Amino acid sequence: MSQKSIIGTSVKRNDLLAKVTGDAKYVADMHLPGLLYARTKRSNVAHARIVKIDTSRALALPGVKAVLTHENVPRVLHAGSPHPRSASVTCDQYILDSKVRYWGESVAVVAATSEEIAEQALDLIDIEYELLPAFFTTEEALAAPASQLIHDREPGGNLVLPPVRVQRGDIVKGFEEADFVLEGEYEGGRPTPAYMEPNACMCQWDGNGNLTVWISTQTAFMVRGIMAEVLGLPLHKVRVLVDHMGGGFGAKQDLFQSEFLCALLAKQTRRPVRMEFSREETFLGGRTRHPFKIWLKQGFRKDGSITARQARVVFNSGAYGSHGPGVTNVGTASLTSLYRCENVDLEGLCVYTNSPIAGAFRGYGVVQTYFALDLQLDEAAQVLGMNPAELKLMNAVSQGDLAPSGHPIVGHGLPDCIRRGMEEVHWPRGSSPKEGPVRRGWGMGCEMHGSSAYPGIKEQGNAIVKMNEDGTVVLLTGTAGLGTGAHTALAQIVAQELGLCFEAVSVMHGDTDVVPWDIGAFASHTTYMGGRAAQMAAAKVKEQLLERAAGYLDTAASNLQVSQGVICGPDGKSMSVRDAVAARKGIPAAQLVGTATYHPTKAYSFAAHFAEVSVDTETGQITVLQVVPVHEIGKVIHPIAAAGQIEGGIQQGIGHTLYEDYQIDMSTGRSLNANFVDYKMPLSMDMPQIRTVLLETAPDPGGPYGAKGVGEDPIIAIGPAIVNAVYDAIGVRFRHYPIRPEQVLQALKARTAQSHRVTEGAYT
Amino acid sequence: MSQKSIIGTSVKRNDLLAKVTGDAKYVADMHLPGLLYARTKRSNVAHARIVKIDTSRALALPGVKAVLTHENVPRVLHAGSPHPRSASVTCDQYILDSKVRYWGESVAVVAATSEEIAEQALDLIDIEYELLPAFFTTEEALAAPASQLIHDREPGGNLVLPPVRVQRGDIVKGFEEADFVLEGEYEGGRPTPAYMEPNACMCQWDGNGNLTVWISTQTAFMVRGIMAEVLGLPLHKVRVLVDHMGGGFGAKQDLFQSEFLCALLAKQTRRPVRMEFSREETFLGGRTRHPFKIWLKQGFRKDGSITARQARVVFNSGAYGSHGPGVTNVGTASLTSLYRCENVDLEGLCVYTNSPIAGAFRGYGVVQTYFALDLQLDEAAQVLGMNPAELKLMNAVSQGDLAPSGHPIVGHGLPDCIRRGMEEVHWPRGSSPKEGPVRRGWGMGCEMHGSSAYPGIKEQGNAIVKMNEDGTVVLLTGTAGLGTGAHTALAQIVAQELGLCFEAVSVMHGDTDVVPWDIGAFASHTTYMGGRAAQMAAAKVKEQLLERAAGYLDTAASNLQVSQGVICGPDGKSMSVRDAVAARKGIPAAQLVGTATYHPTKAYSFAAHFAEVSVDTETGQITVLQVVPVHEIGKVIHPIAAAGQIEGGIQQGIGHTLYEDYQIDMSTGRSLNANFVDYKMPLSMDMPQIRTVLLETAPDPGGPYGAKGVGEDPIIAIGPAIVNAVYDAIGVRFRHYPIRPEQVLQALKARTAQSHRVTEGAYT
Repeated sequence: MSQKSIIGTSVKRNDLLAKVTGDAKYVADMHLPGLLYARTKRSNVAHARIVKIDTSRALALPGVKAVLTHENVPRVLHAGSPHPRSASVTCDQYILDSKVRYWGESVAVVAATSEEIAEQALDLIDIEYELLPAFFTTEEALAAPASQLIHDREPGGNLVLPPVRVQRGDIVKGFEEADFVLEGEYEGGRPTPAYMEPNACMCQWDGNGNLTVWISTQTAFMVRGIMAEVLGLPLHKVRVLVDHMGGGFGAKQDLFQSEFLCALLAKQTRRPVRMEFSREETFLGGRTRHPFKIWLKQGFRKDGSITARQARVVFNSGAYGSHGPGVTNVGTASLTSLYRCENVDLEGLCVYTNSPIAGAFRGYGVVQTYFALDLQLDEAAQVLGMNPAELKLMNAVSQGDLAPSGHPIVGHGLPDCIRRGMEEVHWPRGSSPKEGPVRRGWGMGCEMHGSSAYPGIKEQGNAIVKMNEDGTVVLLTGTAGLGTGAHTALAQIVAQELGLCFEAVSVMHGDTDVVPWDIGAFASHTTYMGGRAAQMAAAKVKEQLLERAAGYLDTAASNLQVSQGVICGPDGKSMSVRDAVAARKGIPAAQLVGTATYHPTKAYSFAAHFAEVSVDTETGQITVLQVVPVHEIGKVIHPIAAAGQIEGGIQQGIGHTLYEDYQIDMSTGRSLNANFVDYKMPLSMDMPQIRTVLLETAPDPGGPYGAKGVGEDPIIAIGPAIVNAVYDAIGVRFRHYPIRPEQVLQALKARTAQSHRVTEGAYT
Repeated sequence: MSQKSIIGTSVKRNDLLAKVTGDAKYVADMHLPGLLYARTKRSNVAHARIVKIDTSRALALPGVKAVLTHENVPRVLHAGSPHPRSASVTCDQYILDSKVRYWGESVAVVAATSEEIAEQALDLIDIEYELLPAFFTTEEALAAPASQLIHDREPGGNLVLPPVRVQRGDIVKGFEEADFVLEGEYEGGRPTPAYMEPNACMCQWDGNGNLTVWISTQTAFMVRGIMAEVLGLPLHKVRVLVDHMGGGFGAKQDLFQSEFLCALLAKQTRRPVRMEFSREETFLGGRTRHPFKIWLKQGFRKDGSITARQARVVFNSGAYGSHGPGVTNVGTASLTSLYRCENVDLEGLCVYTNSPIAGAFRGYGVVQTYFALDLQLDEAAQVLGMNPAELKLMNAVSQGDLAPSGHPIVGHGLPDCIRRGMEEVHWPRGSSPKEGPVRRGWGMGCEMHGSSAYPGIKEQGNAIVKMNEDGTVVLLTGTAGLGTGAHTALAQIVAQELGLCFEAVSVMHGDTDVVPWDIGAFASHTTYMGGRAAQMAAAKVKEQLLERAAGYLDTAASNLQVSQGVICGPDGKSMSVRDAVAARKGIPAAQLVGTATYHPTKAYSFAAHFAEVSVDTETGQITVLQVVPVHEIGKVIHPIAAAGQIEGGIQQGIGHTLYEDYQIDMSTGRSLNANFVDYKMPLSMDMPQIRTVLLETAPDPGGPYGAKGVGEDPIIAIGPAIVNAVYDAIGVRFRHYPIRPEQVLQALKARTAQSHRVTEGAYT
């Protein structure tokens, strides 16, 4: 490109000033005249029928304008995100039901003139429950009698969906060919996305019966779709507005009952109603990562190659299905890849329990399964006497191997990442001293993740680019901005394509009435898919622009280039973009608009994370000292934003691995740590040094300028890297997360069980 | 069309419920947290220099946040609507100036925490003026010495622009060929648009330096352009939002200083600021129709044909130029047409005076010049002993004659209207009894008016049509909705083109960031130009839709028709639009978007108005008893809305002719009747019976389904019809408006001067 490339430059984000000045408005900042405030009454039992619910005392409280219960809301079954992901989500939830399926479930909502009054009214709602037996573990739930199932729906047996089976090759033959077999059980807790901005929405109906919804969501068009469906409206009568967001991490793909209830309260009271979750409610009413158990068995040859892989993955979906089907399918299928193996036999189960609802969360099932897979590779390396990184490198999928989606992999991203990481950290690291109270170790883990969800659902990027009469440009995009800088990347792409400076492009988003349809921000596809559509739409505007300029400059459009806002011909003639748009020489001024739709294929990004930890053998404290994440994400649009995604993913991954676990009382289902005092997340001061390496060795032919996704990748490999490093430090092999100090101490005491043998494994 | 036609059906307007429930929000209804209120200090002298302006007492008032005067605002010359109408408007106004040019001009603004405090602060601003000689009539102003001119700019001599000359044929030969010559002076007062919604705007800057302007304007993109230019911003940093409007009638094309001042106050205070005109300020700071004087001389043959037409038109522009150039050009050129004449010699002058500012107002110069022309035709009929309608019919321009714009006329619209009106009212009416105190008479007048302004300015319609995944549709249009139902007509056009029901189409408008560029709502072109663009964009969506359906139905797209939301093939196969949009048979769901730009030619609409009046010879009271307006406007999209436009135009025209005149004291320039008590408008109970006839005999090939404009037409012919009817009733020929009862009585006394002779004429 003749223009100084904007792609690959860390331009100043276009939302920067608004955010640092506090000017950026989030849904909870919004206010409308006559606004009512809604609060939710939540169950204090885990499994029960509501025998009686009396709202009369609440309704009598001055300031209370409406109370909704299962008795006066439409009885419509819905899923969090039905359009168009029917294969990924479960349709099993009523707006409010006469049955309670977990502790903390919504049973009633109140709209009042203040939050305080609404809160007060909750205590005046009298509920009589008939208790039912509750099941908190997947084992209990799978063993429950038919008469006590949590849901009365197919396939029954407390299964969210029929077991997922993925088979390739011949598993029996594979194990026969093995020189040795490893088998183990791996397990993970219940981390939550813990986004800084609690869920919030505000609803208003206008005099024409149109509903406007302000909401913090990753999937505005899905919200529009499900709101329209549940409320019985055509799509153009529902307008969903999203502006700034304080994170989502996948969970804000769902609807959380509150949105329907907010709309119904607004309809009934004929006033705008706003409902914001408290921090506690982001736990109670939000979504968590799926707790899981994986039994994994692999056969290895002496040379390190993998002959067979068999697994049974069990995800705990909690009280509702949410993204259980998608997570189970994606998570299970991911075990077909990463490390090459021709004979696989995988089973994935997703089980209802009377626990908090698990849903979509960055890494979407893959965090769990690759945790098991990568740990077992380290165990195999130990048996083989090989360096784990070398073993992973020799088995790493590469050009032409099949990705989990069944698509052939493009390029050598994964081996590139492993090799580069080994160079960066001078792998294999010499053994650190394993004496003294504080011991150090190094570990590494790998991952791959698709940009864009599986084909078959309505995956497409759309964009409209509109040039103003002074040559500045507006991009209309349906992509959401969770806070990652996505709209900055899209503006860079448009500016680059049109030969304009970055500042000449503004981005209009988050209004379903005006922007083209978008599937939402998930599956690491915003820059990849929305960015490519933006590039295509910009190219159409450029074509019209150069055609006009060609008329003015008496040359062919193909002879023209545009750079820094100036259109240049080969003969030294030039004109500004602004002049080319304006009326001139009898050609009327133009309205230049380009629209584009991009149907993606499936691009995979790769990473290898190398981590050093220290373990204090006296306190059991594990500290991550440094991480070198090497990512292959194709062309990097905005290096600082990409690195920011990676650092954030590592922070979240450290949390998962060492601290974060949303816990319930295993006899009552009561929430135990639904707050940021008891639910521990690593803070900035807990963070290790991170030295991010971005490779651009395998750009995707479909991505804008070759870009691929980076959103989900960084949370996947950090967990195994840490756990493998802990083994390197203290010789204890953990097979679960989070690893707590007391477990470290306990394991050091009973070290014999954890190391140096092919084991079937209780995890400590 | 196989579908029941939506075109020509008076569907329920899409803004109806919002308006009747009071839910529709106008700018003055808007509120933002921290909002400040701005008020304007206005001069109490007509022509002066500001020697000193002291704001210290105002600034000291608690609650006052900022005061702006000419001393602390940028000194930028601007016109009301510079983009892209440089030929129509004058660039002669500063945001605030050290010179005052009319009584009531803004000299300072205050932003405060309440309107009351802001109002109070105005009295605390101390101003010392140096008075200058003031000129209130065009004669005085044209005679002013060079040292006392109102503006220091070209062409000087208090002229807004160099005299406009329009010449055709040979005027000397024309008069030589005449059997007789008529000559007269015609004159008109200062009616104002008197829209129900006073001017209002609200400005807010965000943390990124973007300016948002909520405003009641007909020309959002022009507001964006001039705000950007005056404030030194690129276009994409200025967002202009318009929702509902309570009228504009042309005047709300301008900016009124208040918008810049509001933006500057918001910038200085870092808070949102709203400024709303009081009713009085809509007179003081608004725009009026140009008061005028026309000297008109025509030569006639005995057969009634017109051999020559000579005129000198003088428009009083008031203190600033505003749309003076456009009005002078359009008004003067209109005298080349309507009644055929090959030899014309016209001069148009537009003159600065120290009077309220005249601007764009429905009829745009043509109201004035056709008033004179049509009255003189009646005078000629009298001389010829012909029936005036017959005389007008024989001279009416028709197919192939040149329109004022120079374009050949399409069809026989004007003769059709005259003939049909004559039939409707059984013309010529037998003489009503001319005895007794109350006498009745009939009169008629004609008009023609272009849909879309003259070519050469950036006239174009743009539209984006976006189909949702359930087959409902959003039209994105930049056209403004002044309250006329324009967006309903546009939705009808889109629904018709796509074969959907009307309710399936919603309209997104009034947001410059999201809708395609639009020139604004004026020149009777919204349905014509914006509607045609909407039709073209819808056709593009339909093309994509049928292409998809063809794939599903195994036939060619050309075999398919769509009607009532169902796509039908010739073989009885069919599918719903909704299904055609959705994913099916491996074809991914589509995002169907169509964009279009329409460059109009010039279409003319025509009308003849027939009116019956009674004149009370004892009180001088003129009452309009009935009006039969016959309009040829091409295909009628929404009959009730079209009739509503016509009835409203007649009401306004009756007001102009009999009541409305915004007056100033001719020694001081002080406003005398800037309120609705003293400025009389006809109310609904003053309205005569109106029997509207809509002809569709000359559809325009460029308009949507053949539609043409109707916005300006109905205000033009009603004036001459009334005045001619008054002559029929009492034999007094008035040559001015408004005609007041005392003038009637006076004229009846001195009747000799008014009738039965070829006259040069003082008007009463």
